[in-house]
Amino acid sequence: MKIIKYPKQSDYQALLTRPTQDIAVIEQRVAPILYRVKTEGDIALRDFALIFDKVHLESIEMPSTEIEKAASLLSDDLKQAIHQAYKNIHKFHEAQKSTPEKIETMAGVTCWRKTVGIDKVGVYIPGGTAPLFSTVLMLGIPAQIAGCREIVLCTPSNHPAILYAASLCGITKVYRIGGAQAIAAMAYGTETVPQVYKIFGPGNQYVTAAKMLVNKEGIAIDMPAGPSEVAVYADDSANPAFVAADLLSQAEHGVDSQVLLVSTSEKIIEAVNEELTKQLAVLPRADFASKALENSQAILVENQEIALALLNDYAAEHLILSIENAEEVSEKIYQAGSIFLGNYTPESAGDYASGTNHTLPTNGYARAYSGVSLDSFVKKITVQHITKEGIQNLGKTIIEMAEAESLDAHANAVKIRM
Amino acid sequence: MKIIKYPKQSDYQALLTRPTQDIAVIEQRVAPILYRVKTEGDIALRDFALIFDKVHLESIEMPSTEIEKAASLLSDDLKQAIHQAYKNIHKFHEAQKSTPEKIETMAGVTCWRKTVGIDKVGVYIPGGTAPLFSTVLMLGIPAQIAGCREIVLCTPSNHPAILYAASLCGITKVYRIGGAQAIAAMAYGTETVPQVYKIFGPGNQYVTAAKMLVNKEGIAIDMPAGPSEVAVYADDSANPAFVAADLLSQAEHGVDSQVLLVSTSEKIIEAVNEELTKQLAVLPRADFASKALENSQAILVENQEIALALLNDYAAEHLILSIENAEEVSEKIYQAGSIFLGNYTPESAGDYASGTNHTLPTNGYARAYSGVSLDSFVKKITVQHITKEGIQNLGKTIIEMAEAESLDAHANAVKIRM
Repeated sequence: MKIIKYPKQSDYQALLTRPTQDIAVIEQRVAPILYRVKTEGDIALRDFALIFDKVHLESIEMPSTEIEKAASLLSDDLKQAIHQAYKNIHKFHEAQKSTPEKIETMAGVTCWRKTVGIDKVGVYIPGGTAPLFSTVLMLGIPAQIAGCREIVLCTPSNHPAILYAASLCGITKVYRIGGAQAIAAMAYGTETVPQVYKIFGPGNQYVTAAKMLVNKEGIAIDMPAGPSEVAVYADDSANPAFVAADLLSQAEHGVDSQVLLVSTSEKIIEAVNEELTKQLAVLPRADFASKALENSQAILVENQEIALALLNDYAAEHLILSIENAEEVSEKIYQAGSIFLGNYTPESAGDYASGTNHTLPTNGYARAYSGVSLDSFVKKITVQHITKEGIQNLGKTIIEMAEAESLDAHANAVKIRM
Repeated sequence: MKIIKYPKQSDYQALLTRPTQDIAVIEQRVAPILYRVKTEGDIALRDFALIFDKVHLESIEMPSTEIEKAASLLSDDLKQAIHQAYKNIHKFHEAQKSTPEKIETMAGVTCWRKTVGIDKVGVYIPGGTAPLFSTVLMLGIPAQIAGCREIVLCTPSNHPAILYAASLCGITKVYRIGGAQAIAAMAYGTETVPQVYKIFGPGNQYVTAAKMLVNKEGIAIDMPAGPSEVAVYADDSANPAFVAADLLSQAEHGVDSQVLLVSTSEKIIEAVNEELTKQLAVLPRADFASKALENSQAILVENQEIALALLNDYAAEHLILSIENAEEVSEKIYQAGSIFLGNYTPESAGDYASGTNHTLPTNGYARAYSGVSLDSFVKKITVQHITKEGIQNLGKTIIEMAEAESLDAHANAVKIRM
């Protein structure tokens, strides 16, 4: 990691700038894929499977026999781990349910919200080097709690852990397609793949571009995506080996992973750097991690106030506070995706099994976006009831405002009832 | 209104199709406007004000003296109405606050969410025929409750009711700019206009296209927009004059407004049609309304089951249930922006003053999106704390899963702590 000592405030912005992604070129390649799936349906899906994945798709839908036998292909230890993660994630997301409260805003005027699961949602799980069954849990569990009637899963992977996690979440419709074409299939529907109203899940830049393009056509998506990132704020109470392990667990995701260390202690920064070298040496994905670290930086700052200003500006997807009084200090953080407190709370706990969701805003999106939660899978419909007396109480207000906005029919709809 | 009697189920989809909007052409015109504001800042804003609004902008920021004198330019009745609306909207949105609950998912593993207002938000209020001060309340009040530190308002209108509503909501930064260039100013920031992280508010198709384009660049927006719409479901208990008044209050918005009447009663449909003719004759915005009605339809259906299936499929922005047992029936509605129950609950109550928000999903977006609420102005940051014992309890689960996903550094971050 590059070490930057006591940067000037005027340099913060440049220091914290993330690499820009020009997706215009990618969009130009993705748009025709979307168009073909929209107009040709399953035929296009089969073609693209052959072209991009070199797969001759016998059936687009995963046979239920494949899903059923998944459990038998996994070790008991892994199944038990998946069950424990399921339980914790379920508990945390179940607690996000809210009971609608009826509010009488004036006598005879009652308003409330009712929460309904989005009827049809789609989950995309990429293939590639890591079979992301954890993401199946992170998206499938809140969808299940929300009561989404139809949960569609598209994945080019046939890893049994993905299928096993899916069946735990009550997902029965799995389609063996990947890439931009899978996003298109869920956005438009094909003969085989049902259309959904909201699409969730990670993917490469083609998948991301496809999600942005269908979003523009009115299909909701979880959130815009960018490379994964962690910021660690460490003081002298931090354990350098733990901090290094956390930085590496982010860096191993890919060469574009963003890793940031902020500290008031030069000693800690040096110790972490030494630990990085040591731990990197024995890491299977060392090639990814070491490239990611080359682009990463450790920033030494004068005091906590500056550290917090920097970290709030950066708005990290994951923020680890390896400091004294971590919980108290976390109150001053207002921009981050998820916060990890103290020396025994590694990011990987939240990535897998502590209960929080790992689908989080990257690339500074934490300034305006929350991570995925139960909220992401429901709509809150407002409902109101006004009595004959209520409209007498409220009527004058509405009429006055409607007429001032020159919307007389709005006023009439009240006058006629009074 | 066209009357369609007992349509076949196979015709539903065609019947309920909304006019498609091709925004590609508009985007091509909007993109260079965004680019100029991004690169030239205030100079571009002044140029566009001259070109599009024929206004020579002395100062881009609204002078505080203008805001201060707004109150003196309004009648006491209107001010009182705005205050009453403020009070009701505030009460309903204040009740949407949630207290974070700490969840111990396993012994020593505690997770919660903390709610923080989005630091900087922007509100756009169009100029045009109707001064939408009600929208200032609908966006300003939840922003105020959420504790957004900076609330920026852009509007080409200098109507005192807009400025008055803004100051009630604690908005002190008002900029006299409109159109796509106003959205660009808030998205990128200029010398005068602060950059924001999320942009709210209605507008014409240029504004809408600008919001979609900046959204693709990572600026959050309230939701995709389309023409306003109402569906009324009426049975024999409905009052035809009320129903007609509600349909007209939607139709007067513009020629592209969508109006739908669904009924099991031919008598009611005929009576509503007669009332429409009668009420339309005396309406100031009759030209808009009558054109909107030409594209609208009344659908006669066999029974309530069919009515509800149609209405759920349509996913109306506003749904008025002028029927017996309206609240009970509303339980079966799972796709709508906002529901109005019974004969004395006109849409205009929710448009102005009952307390619910009037920024709602149009164009079928209610299938996946909720209307604006306090939630729209906050982020929920997950926080977790694991004790030394907690990581012993959870560790094995994380290690097992991380290794199965081939992410060894994720596993290491736990092993090193155990």
